[in-house]
Amino acid sequence: MSEEMGLTVKKADDFSKWYLEVLQKSEVLDERYGVKGFVIYMPTGTFLLRRMQDIFEEGLQKTGHKAVIFPVVIPEKNLNKEAEHIKGFEDEVFWVTHGGKHKLEERLCLRPTSETAFYPMYSVWLRSHTQLPFKLYQAVSVYRAETKMTKPLIRGREFFWIEAHTAQKTFDDADKQVEEDMGIFEKGLSSLCLPFLLCQRPEWDKFAGAEKTSAYDVVLPDGKVLQIGTTHNLGEKFSKPFDIKYMDQNGKKIYVNQTTFGIGISRIMGALVAIHGDDKGLILPPAVAPTQIVIVPIYTAETKTKVMEKAGEILGRLEGKNLRVILDDREGKTPGFKFHEWELKGVPLRIEIGPRDLEKGQVVLTRRDFLERTSIAEEKLEEQALEVLDSIGFQLKKRADALLKITPAKTLKELKKALEEKGGFVHIDFCGNESCAKKIKEDAGAEVRGTIVGKKEPAKGECAVCGKKAVQKVYVARSY
Amino acid sequence: MSEEMGLTVKKADDFSKWYLEVLQKSEVLDERYGVKGFVIYMPTGTFLLRRMQDIFEEGLQKTGHKAVIFPVVIPEKNLNKEAEHIKGFEDEVFWVTHGGKHKLEERLCLRPTSETAFYPMYSVWLRSHTQLPFKLYQAVSVYRAETKMTKPLIRGREFFWIEAHTAQKTFDDADKQVEEDMGIFEKGLSSLCLPFLLCQRPEWDKFAGAEKTSAYDVVLPDGKVLQIGTTHNLGEKFSKPFDIKYMDQNGKKIYVNQTTFGIGISRIMGALVAIHGDDKGLILPPAVAPTQIVIVPIYTAETKTKVMEKAGEILGRLEGKNLRVILDDREGKTPGFKFHEWELKGVPLRIEIGPRDLEKGQVVLTRRDFLERTSIAEEKLEEQALEVLDSIGFQLKKRADALLKITPAKTLKELKKALEEKGGFVHIDFCGNESCAKKIKEDAGAEVRGTIVGKKEPAKGECAVCGKKAVQKVYVARSY
Repeated sequence: MSEEMGLTVKKADDFSKWYLEVLQKSEVLDERYGVKGFVIYMPTGTFLLRRMQDIFEEGLQKTGHKAVIFPVVIPEKNLNKEAEHIKGFEDEVFWVTHGGKHKLEERLCLRPTSETAFYPMYSVWLRSHTQLPFKLYQAVSVYRAETKMTKPLIRGREFFWIEAHTAQKTFDDADKQVEEDMGIFEKGLSSLCLPFLLCQRPEWDKFAGAEKTSAYDVVLPDGKVLQIGTTHNLGEKFSKPFDIKYMDQNGKKIYVNQTTFGIGISRIMGALVAIHGDDKGLILPPAVAPTQIVIVPIYTAETKTKVMEKAGEILGRLEGKNLRVILDDREGKTPGFKFHEWELKGVPLRIEIGPRDLEKGQVVLTRRDFLERTSIAEEKLEEQALEVLDSIGFQLKKRADALLKITPAKTLKELKKALEEKGGFVHIDFCGNESCAKKIKEDAGAEVRGTIVGKKEPAKGECAVCGKKAVQKVYVARSY
Repeated sequence: MSEEMGLTVKKADDFSKWYLEVLQKSEVLDERYGVKGFVIYMPTGTFLLRRMQDIFEEGLQKTGHKAVIFPVVIPEKNLNKEAEHIKGFEDEVFWVTHGGKHKLEERLCLRPTSETAFYPMYSVWLRSHTQLPFKLYQAVSVYRAETKMTKPLIRGREFFWIEAHTAQKTFDDADKQVEEDMGIFEKGLSSLCLPFLLCQRPEWDKFAGAEKTSAYDVVLPDGKVLQIGTTHNLGEKFSKPFDIKYMDQNGKKIYVNQTTFGIGISRIMGALVAIHGDDKGLILPPAVAPTQIVIVPIYTAETKTKVMEKAGEILGRLEGKNLRVILDDREGKTPGFKFHEWELKGVPLRIEIGPRDLEKGQVVLTRRDFLERTSIAEEKLEEQALEVLDSIGFQLKKRADALLKITPAKTLKELKKALEEKGGFVHIDFCGNESCAKKIKEDAGAEVRGTIVGKKEPAKGECAVCGKKAVQKVYVARSY
């Protein structure tokens, strides 16, 4: 709904400014709501959010997860039940204290995550080994009173995610759930054309209350990484304080082992915009684009009827292929204006049709990734359109893959150099001590993101920081 | 997830108790969360909510409304801008006062409705007459600190709705929006098999800040009515304090006229459960049932392979017709147990198949509304299944229509008698004065719901309460 078109800054010149401008001008969201860390999802952003939600929910449902919706508020006494958990969240929960003019008997927090909402009920619901594995999820907004600088979609006080909460018999079963989650995550990210790295976080960087935290990172164009999802093996950390037991075949009551899987929809949307976009605006992967194809008719007064007739016919044919297509028949806007607007909004494929094309029995395709124009025979339109959309997905993934750099380094100096010159991840031998991780943070402003989940990478040399014997290979990156 | 099956109370004996029991046992929701007025939507409830949301969103999108998502919090200063509005809501908003251990600079309320969230942005976004009509909506939860007794889905402190907010040039244009809304509402309710009455509310019962309020009521089995939706013509009541203007063709700046349309998804779900269910449990209209058809195979050890093979084939055939079908192949549960469970959960159609059916080339259909069993030729299965599902929708609507009683009355005594004996609406001549409405409330515990929207019903006689000259015919009902 902004009148001024076009971006004023190049992505390579000032990524941060470009990112904010593209979000606002392409109508993904509006950050002028006036409350720190809260943004408005505009129609494009709302569509993306819902479509991404559908993609990940499909994966969850296929693996036997069922959807529920829990209340947005959690009573203070629930939040306090697991000691590490409350310690991790007490500084960043929003408190509801009053209803109308009356003080509430008990403070309620807006859910920052929902372990302490779900698990009192798991204690009621779970009885028998026949109910395991037990898998629920909800797709909701969560709330954290971030004190750091906020950035739309990347660090907000309200963000949208899907959180799955499971209960299994054993710790190993919970580990297997992490593997299943990875499959769901990988499939979803693949249709968004986004590559990621899954690391098991070091001890000092685990989720508050988890035995193990595995986390999904993407690399943004400025070389910094963004955590967009996590799976936590909670072991019995929550089942003990919340008294969640099942009865085994011998009638013995046993604590369940649990996992939490968080899919950061808002952050994934941020990554999608940041990674695929260019100096002309958004570039949306066909799988999630609200409009996959726009048809722009080009005509004069004499040729209008004929061109519009053909444009209408083409619209019908493409809709018949279940594509999301718009025919931009606005009067009083030039084709050039329309081209710019749809480029800004990231529509993957544009079809132009004018009187000369009519005569030649052709149409002109322009793909948003390369902005290449090609004339094709009109009769091959459907086939070609589907092929180009596929190819755009492939090319976006290829470009994004190039951002996910992994550079080896042997010393702290090399590590810093790699981070500055290349960004992404740096791969080092590491002693495993938090003190060395702190030194990396101080000297290079980077974090140890952990070891790759499900891949053995034994270290043979010395720790890149302290020079003592290394026990593992870890990935280091600067992060949001 | 409850182990105890079957309802312990009959709908006609104790509607209120039956309602709570059916919600819990059929796993629509769980009200044991432990915070007054906040419930958990279980898998069936979550499916119903989403499906109903889809149905109404389709209607909104077809009429040019676009989806957005606004923050859940509204700053106190926004809420205070329209005087009547804040007066209407100040006693029932939840206040967020702290982030972590810090007091917020400004209190934020959880949206009780979102006029004061949307309209500051409308003032930013709206510039020109070419943008009108301007139509946005969001499907979200809203929050009200109800002090009255809460009842799941019917009166809660957190409920789900869709709210559309529009801007038009004139007051008449806004009235036309009310008509469009009615079309959307009617179409949605029709696929849920629910009849309703749309009344323009009397002056003293308008939405806080509206010029006119039109509201959609259904009649529940206890004869009381439930408001499940509203459209408000706000006129310039909000555009003035929020400074929302457009420039007309002559360059003149003019305040827009606005409407708010609220579709009470939670309440509609409550009505759906309450109106269609019976002593065996839920009865779900096929359009929204998570499972439309359940196949129950009946076999012995010898006949199992053959029966299961056929059952699997039938499952595939019905899924091929885009139906939501489950094959209940659980071992260790008797067919009788399965029948009861799926009846409790309201699955519209059950298909039984046993060895004798196999021999005869038939299957047995049992429809959930009449619990009638019919054998049909297996080759006609798809055709018959679709026909029965249609017929169930039709019969549910017919039953519901019978609840929506409208009884004429000439005196307060007749009015009370009609309310007690028949319930639903009572149709009276009315003087139009609030004092008479108060008398109806005191003597009969009922409210004047208003006049029918878009239908002229001039009154010729005397007011049923005071005997003075009547100016209108109104509908009176006891309400939730």
